[in-house]
Amino acid sequence: MKVAIIMGSKSDYPKLEEGVNLLKKFGIEVEKRVLSAHRTPDELMKFMENIDDVDVIIAAAGKAAHLAGVVASHTLKPVIGIPIKSSTLDGMDSLLSMVQMPKGIPVATVTIDSSLNASLLASQIMSLKYESLKTELENHRKEMAKKVLEDDEIVRNL
Amino acid sequence: MKVAIIMGSKSDYPKLEEGVNLLKKFGIEVEKRVLSAHRTPDELMKFMENIDDVDVIIAAAGKAAHLAGVVASHTLKPVIGIPIKSSTLDGMDSLLSMVQMPKGIPVATVTIDSSLNASLLASQIMSLKYESLKTELENHRKEMAKKVLEDDEIVRNL
Amino acid sequence: MKVAIIMGSKSDYPKLEEGVNLLKKFGIEVEKRVLSAHRTPDELMKFMENIDDVDVIIAAAGKAAHLAGVVASHTLKPVIGIPIKSSTLDGMDSLLSMVQMPKGIPVATVTIDSSLNASLLASQIMSLKYESLKTELENHRKEMAKKVLEDDEIVRNL
Amino acid sequence: MKVAIIMGSKSDYPKLEEGVNLLKKFGIEVEKRVLSAHRTPDELMKFMENIDDVDVIIAAAGKAAHLAGVVASHTLKPVIGIPIKSSTLDGMDSLLSMVQMPKGIPVATVTIDSSLNASLLASQIMSLKYESLKTELENHRKEMAKKVLEDDEIVRNL
Amino acid sequence: MKVAIIMGSKSDYPKLEEGVNLLKKFGIEVEKRVLSAHRTPDELMKFMENIDDVDVIIAAAGKAAHLAGVVASHTLKPVIGIPIKSSTLDGMDSLLSMVQMPKGIPVATVTIDSSLNASLLASQIMSLKYESLKTELENHRKEMAKKVLEDDEIVRNL
Amino acid sequence: MKVAIIMGSKSDYPKLEEGVNLLKKFGIEVEKRVLSAHRTPDELMKFMENIDDVDVIIAAAGKAAHLAGVVASHTLKPVIGIPIKSSTLDGMDSLLSMVQMPKGIPVATVTIDSSLNASLLASQIMSLKYESLKTELENHRKEMAKKVLEDDEIVRNL
Amino acid sequence: MKVAIIMGSKSDYPKLEEGVNLLKKFGIEVEKRVLSAHRTPDELMKFMENIDDVDVIIAAAGKAAHLAGVVASHTLKPVIGIPIKSSTLDGMDSLLSMVQMPKGIPVATVTIDSSLNASLLASQIMSLKYESLKTELENHRKEMAKKVLEDDEIVRNL
Amino acid sequence: MKVAIIMGSKSDYPKLEEGVNLLKKFGIEVEKRVLSAHRTPDELMKFMENIDDVDVIIAAAGKAAHLAGVVASHTLKPVIGIPIKSSTLDGMDSLLSMVQMPKGIPVATVTIDSSLNASLLASQIMSLKYESLKTELENHRKEMAKKVLEDDEIVRNL
Repeated sequence: MKVAIIMGSKSDYPKLEEGVNLLKKFGIEVEKRVLSAHRTPDELMKFMENIDDVDVIIAAAGKAAHLAGVVASHTLKPVIGIPIKSSTLDGMDSLLSMVQMPKGIPVATVTIDSSLNASLLASQIMSLKYESLKTELENHRKEMAKKVLEDDEIVRNL
Repeated sequence: MKVAIIMGSKSDYPKLEEGVNLLKKFGIEVEKRVLSAHRTPDELMKFMENIDDVDVIIAAAGKAAHLAGVVASHTLKPVIGIPIKSSTLDGMDSLLSMVQMPKGIPVATVTIDSSLNASLLASQIMSLKYESLKTELENHRKEMAKKVLEDDEIVRNL
Repeated sequence: MKVAIIMGSKSDYPKLEEGVNLLKKFGIEVEKRVLSAHRTPDELMKFMENIDDVDVIIAAAGKAAHLAGVVASHTLKPVIGIPIKSSTLDGMDSLLSMVQMPKGIPVATVTIDSSLNASLLASQIMSLKYESLKTELENHRKEMAKKVLEDDEIVRNL
Repeated sequence: MKVAIIMGSKSDYPKLEEGVNLLKKFGIEVEKRVLSAHRTPDELMKFMENIDDVDVIIAAAGKAAHLAGVVASHTLKPVIGIPIKSSTLDGMDSLLSMVQMPKGIPVATVTIDSSLNASLLASQIMSLKYESLKTELENHRKEMAKKVLEDDEIVRNL
Repeated sequence: MKVAIIMGSKSDYPKLEEGVNLLKKFGIEVEKRVLSAHRTPDELMKFMENIDDVDVIIAAAGKAAHLAGVVASHTLKPVIGIPIKSSTLDGMDSLLSMVQMPKGIPVATVTIDSSLNASLLASQIMSLKYESLKTELENHRKEMAKKVLEDDEIVRNL
Repeated sequence: MKVAIIMGSKSDYPKLEEGVNLLKKFGIEVEKRVLSAHRTPDELMKFMENIDDVDVIIAAAGKAAHLAGVVASHTLKPVIGIPIKSSTLDGMDSLLSMVQMPKGIPVATVTIDSSLNASLLASQIMSLKYESLKTELENHRKEMAKKVLEDDEIVRNL
Repeated sequence: MKVAIIMGSKSDYPKLEEGVNLLKKFGIEVEKRVLSAHRTPDELMKFMENIDDVDVIIAAAGKAAHLAGVVASHTLKPVIGIPIKSSTLDGMDSLLSMVQMPKGIPVATVTIDSSLNASLLASQIMSLKYESLKTELENHRKEMAKKVLEDDEIVRNL
Repeated sequence: MKVAIIMGSKSDYPKLEEGVNLLKKFGIEVEKRVLSAHRTPDELMKFMENIDDVDVIIAAAGKAAHLAGVVASHTLKPVIGIPIKSSTLDGMDSLLSMVQMPKGIPVATVTIDSSLNASLLASQIMSLKYESLKTELENHRKEMAKKVLEDDEIVRNL
């Protein structure tokens, strides 16, 4: 079980850490890469040729976020995109650059800045193949629900 | 191999036909349903309890498009969302209502109105489990490329 | 006289406090709950089955804010939605996800982040049934007007 | 049982007809008025002084849609706003002008152009006082659900 | 020579100070008022009846900024609107609520948060009647140009 | 009494006709010009040097609508801007390009595509100097109100 | 003198014709290609390796318009981007996907749908190297100005 | 080799420094000017008459950013626009005011706030004429790629 997480810039990493940790907790191998669709297109292509053991690719980028789309155009594996909010336009530019992919090359886009949702989606996709992930996902949902109910208890008594 | 396509309204169907046809062409069984998160919540829940044989769910809806999110909260299977453009706001409302899912329940959102991209993504996801789909997807890409190159030939000589 | 205030996350509570206090000041019982449409759908449904004594429901949520819509689809009581601004898109995503409800299931949406307006609207609605609230609302308006006139006095002399 | 529907311009009427018909079907008296917050402020005020027998007010307007807010500032009754899409900006201007009411004077805003949702919300509000409306609302939901299920039947067999 | 500056809330005042000072520097009498279109409609109307000596009215408000439009509907004098940015939506809501006035009642809208531009526009309007203001405006432009040229000198040598 | 109406393109003229007719009806001389800030900057400057007899300038333009701002930077007379909606972005580009003028050079921006509001604003401004316009404006408001009340009569009886 | 015009889809061609004609009129050789960044990435790369004789590249694409950025990442020649408006979001998605290029790889973005502006920009850029283009550009501006002045003549007399 | 960088306000300079430094590093002479299209139109015109030795002009401005368009209308040299984000609307106003230039006068618009991209684009344009810049640009790309690969190394081992 392996996921590759590609980010357009090292500065995106802090927003990705939560998702990386979830995948590891689920027992999924994670390959973390900084590869830019624009600044290192050749290295990105080289990387794309060596992902036979990867099940799902997660790509995170900001501004005119082409990374996920470029990755998707070089593989038939599922590609998940995380739009990263940068210093202007409040995330709208990266969202539209990722989700509005032209006909034929889809990118599975998740919530802006949400590496957790990307990792959960990757795990849900991989659970088609790896039965063990179903249990992990079930447990994660139960924990989330438990956390909400604990918060509920607190707020009811405020 | 089975995909369920749920739409919020029968009027969304014409936009979904292209995607339905692709799935069928790929040999994937398609269950097409009109089920509203808001108008038929009980029937939707009932449906969600009987999808053991479904690999991936595609949900299409317009306006405040909750359908995909509600579906996603009741399954651990991958859920793909197609935001449908309606009579106001040019698709922005359905896009944001689908993609901006809160932490924990991702929806794999694709291009507004693009059932083709949803079906391709579903096939890519299912190809983790069903080897045969890889060939179908490869052929589809080749056909797309061929079509572009034919168009290229025409435009070069205009 | 009873209002249920449901929020998608405990972190929304500080923005809701002003509205909670107003309702209490008006002598309205307030049930405060953290219940997520996506993370705890079953608990939310269970809650919805036990609100016979509730007059109006207020639902607050951010991002793809489905909570109010999901609540509205399970009750015939009036549902008021407070879109909560989160870390991206400046509140636009929650606003559109709440207000643009498809035909048949309305959500009475108020100003982004404004629990005060939600509580006032709830009180205005409940005043159809509870005469005493009319006096409370009148007094509140008078106090607001008085506050504006005091501010006016200060600014005139700046 | 009486609802007043105020519109900023006669040209808004066709979009309001569906809602008017629903209210009448529910046995609710409807007073339909064309009154502009800007062009006939005095007549609007005069009208506001004679609405003792009105339970809920619905206000529909386009562009910088002040009508609902101005009405709301002159009554303690619940005011529902329908933002009307006009020739530019795709409804965004009327939506923001209605929903983003400053502190203290809420407008219960519904979907752009949706008089049906406004009328349903009005009925839900009035059902606090008039028991008979509960049955009407329940029946309406059932009919809506029935319609969805009929559509479902058709689409399943396409 | 007299300008009335009405603001929807005392908290808007700091953004208005620059414009107030300019008017005073130009020898124009300034009446500063906090009057809310929604919270103190009667006082606002009363004020509108006593503005015979006012040449131009400036209205500043945030969110669903109806103030300028309501003022404009009660006078034939020119009304200038300053959209005030509030805590959500980055000023877009107040801008659209002010500028998109329906047919017949214009509001002369200026840059978001710019009381300076409002005061300059007021002075330009009043200069049709008061010759002395032309000199003031000319001097102000010269000073602005001088400031730019001084900055130019500094930047050229950086 | 004279107003100059400058438009960026002849194709804007049909949207300006309503405003031209109003000004003429009010007895105001109208000079109509097609002058582009970008395509004929010299002719525009030449025009700006010969507007001593003009009281107010109206500038209408679409897309990156610089015309009003450029005109405003060459005169101390009041400049009114009409943002014209063009084939993309629904008028938002021209609105922002007109209203968001930097400090020091205001443009009195009115509703997108609304030459009527521009002409009314021009008349209100000129009424500071020309008493006769007050009567015209009063009559126009009365006619507008009368038209609304007639529409009201029709709608009440529908 | 040679310009390559790449479009993402043959359906974009009608919007590009005006620009193609201008370049030809200026005596510039035009290579017109349909090459998709996503559907034919290999052919696009092959093309990029054979553009030694091309001075400037124009890339036109809609939706998540990655074409210009991908082209720009494979050349040091100037790349001009034309965002094409497609069936949703009114051109905003293609504009942001083109102009908001991350640090290091600029795309010279022009007006949505405007191949004329792209061709003029290409000619202005090439005029650094080819003196003859300066005369062509001067003549074009004169013709544009002449056209405006002819329109001016017509409108003045309307 | 010479580039002129014009900014609308001295306060824009810090955002421009990175681009200025790059040009200098490339051996390009830089003329830095503060000249406002609106506050110092005459000085701007005077400057435009003395740019024979300038190859490319970069113009940076915020809000209704007319500077680049006005500059472009007075020269046939390539004009690059940098939209500067100001205190409201998150850069959208300056972006649209720059990029949406009407037919005939293009502005080569780059990423909001990105003087680096403007300087790179200027260098790419000038490399048509000055061979030496090609080496500089190649080296810059290599350095960028090297930096990404170094970051990649770090992130892989996190």
